[in-house]
Amino acid sequence: MFIDRLVNQIQQKQSCVLVGLDPRLEYIPDIFKNGYYKEYGKSLEAVGEIILQFNKAIINQVWDIVPAVKPQIAFYEQYGLPGLRAYSETCKYAQSKGLLVIGDVKRGDIGTTSKAYSNAHLGVVNVEGKEFETFSTDAITTNPYLGDDCLKEFMNDILERDKGMFVLIKTSNPTSGQLQDLEVQGKKIYEGVAEMVYKWSLSTLGSCGYASVGGVVAATHPKQAQDLRRLMKRAYFLVPGYGAQGGSVEDILGCFNEDGLGAIINSSREILYAYMKKDRNYDANYFGEAARNETLVMRQNINEALATITK
Amino acid sequence: MFIDRLVNQIQQKQSCVLVGLDPRLEYIPDIFKNGYYKEYGKSLEAVGEIILQFNKAIINQVWDIVPAVKPQIAFYEQYGLPGLRAYSETCKYAQSKGLLVIGDVKRGDIGTTSKAYSNAHLGVVNVEGKEFETFSTDAITTNPYLGDDCLKEFMNDILERDKGMFVLIKTSNPTSGQLQDLEVQGKKIYEGVAEMVYKWSLSTLGSCGYASVGGVVAATHPKQAQDLRRLMKRAYFLVPGYGAQGGSVEDILGCFNEDGLGAIINSSREILYAYMKKDRNYDANYFGEAARNETLVMRQNINEALATITK
Repeated sequence: MFIDRLVNQIQQKQSCVLVGLDPRLEYIPDIFKNGYYKEYGKSLEAVGEIILQFNKAIINQVWDIVPAVKPQIAFYEQYGLPGLRAYSETCKYAQSKGLLVIGDVKRGDIGTTSKAYSNAHLGVVNVEGKEFETFSTDAITTNPYLGDDCLKEFMNDILERDKGMFVLIKTSNPTSGQLQDLEVQGKKIYEGVAEMVYKWSLSTLGSCGYASVGGVVAATHPKQAQDLRRLMKRAYFLVPGYGAQGGSVEDILGCFNEDGLGAIINSSREILYAYMKKDRNYDANYFGEAARNETLVMRQNINEALATITK
Repeated sequence: MFIDRLVNQIQQKQSCVLVGLDPRLEYIPDIFKNGYYKEYGKSLEAVGEIILQFNKAIINQVWDIVPAVKPQIAFYEQYGLPGLRAYSETCKYAQSKGLLVIGDVKRGDIGTTSKAYSNAHLGVVNVEGKEFETFSTDAITTNPYLGDDCLKEFMNDILERDKGMFVLIKTSNPTSGQLQDLEVQGKKIYEGVAEMVYKWSLSTLGSCGYASVGGVVAATHPKQAQDLRRLMKRAYFLVPGYGAQGGSVEDILGCFNEDGLGAIINSSREILYAYMKKDRNYDANYFGEAARNETLVMRQNINEALATITK
């Protein structure tokens, strides 16, 4: 089961830090980019190579202190085929270093179309009897707006191929409440989604006691995260919104159970572009070391806080 | 404005038929595929080429009798980079024949991530001052679950680059009602989404009197489509669910206004794989002609029905 592999990584590395691999060209040091522009010109091919090599440098610095990475596919997709090649190669490289990869793709569509997304991101495609993996990762994020017959299309790959899924439940953006917080007979929409997801996620329970189908629950809404924790006891939460988006260590504590498990906490910018932090004395030449250092700080902060709630 | 280009095409061709380019390898005639397998082996490259050439054959048969095509990106994405190359080349070829292309991508994410999707599918990416188009189409479909700050990230490209967007409102799948039909203070969720989208879509009104931001409204829920028509008078509807999914000509009439405009009706399988229809005498060698014929039948059926409601 995906979830057993994830919990195993978390326990081995004493770390629930999820590194969000969101390549932002404007934040990658010039000194790193310039060589590629010289070789490939100012082209999409250059950007693809820059992104891939930047990601590899980050992965080389964090693979032993985090359980997983989460590339956000939009930041690759915008650079066309060279960007998506970088996405695919990044995923493979991270896996070769023992990391789990959660593709932040937020896909979701009607029946056969969702199945095609599942083939792309969790499973295989079949070409006249030969099977190929394309963008295959260990788990993905999905969108619940269409209803659960669409999400269930991913279940076959989750069960048969030991994959995972995190369904959007409560997101971190300013207007997330517009739809998600609407109340129907005393119950918020996101609670309804949580119940729907949780009900059938229980068929994906691993031997660690958690399920391979979990939810995206933002750090920016700590009270709601606590309620969801009670509602979905055995679900793992993928928690965005920590750090740059405003969520503090205290805000995320409610995402965990008393066993110190139940959540992975994402950080993207604050780790990837740590070298830019004004209150530190980092050097752009050593952006990778800066990333490692900030990851260690984040791991320690969370672990210290977790020690106060675990029994 | 995108919407003026769309309405112009619809009026010129007397057709509101939208051809859904959903490549399904198993339905493409063997006689068409075999040559590519001989040349490229049973590979993703072969599939990419098969999809592209199949699409071109369909486009060559329908470009003069439909306003637009709608490739569903999931069916390309599953074949990795060769599949997405076929997506991109299909879009370009369709545009070269004067067709509008609606990328059925159902993307949607938080702020900067949605902007990256907008760059990918409606706009450009900037590489050190040089701009590149990657998967650029004329319009896309988007998902509203995260709230409108996310959807608004697409607005810049819509206004500045004459693009369009169709936001998922009421979808055609069996469990679409699970979330979309929940009722909050006498109002269904999909109605709330419709009002939210409609309010700011009015800034995208074209000289034709319709807006470049519209909605996806399924043919499988005729009563709800009628209500939405009243709620979003100047919005264009992209209507899936006609034909194979069960929607009849009568079911879609409520999607139109009295001017005979307001909706484009999608058909995928029934056109693309028309040659397989058991009640016709088509020949796999002439799958393109079969597709044209079924498109003409669909156009005529809809136009005859429209004549009964227009004033």
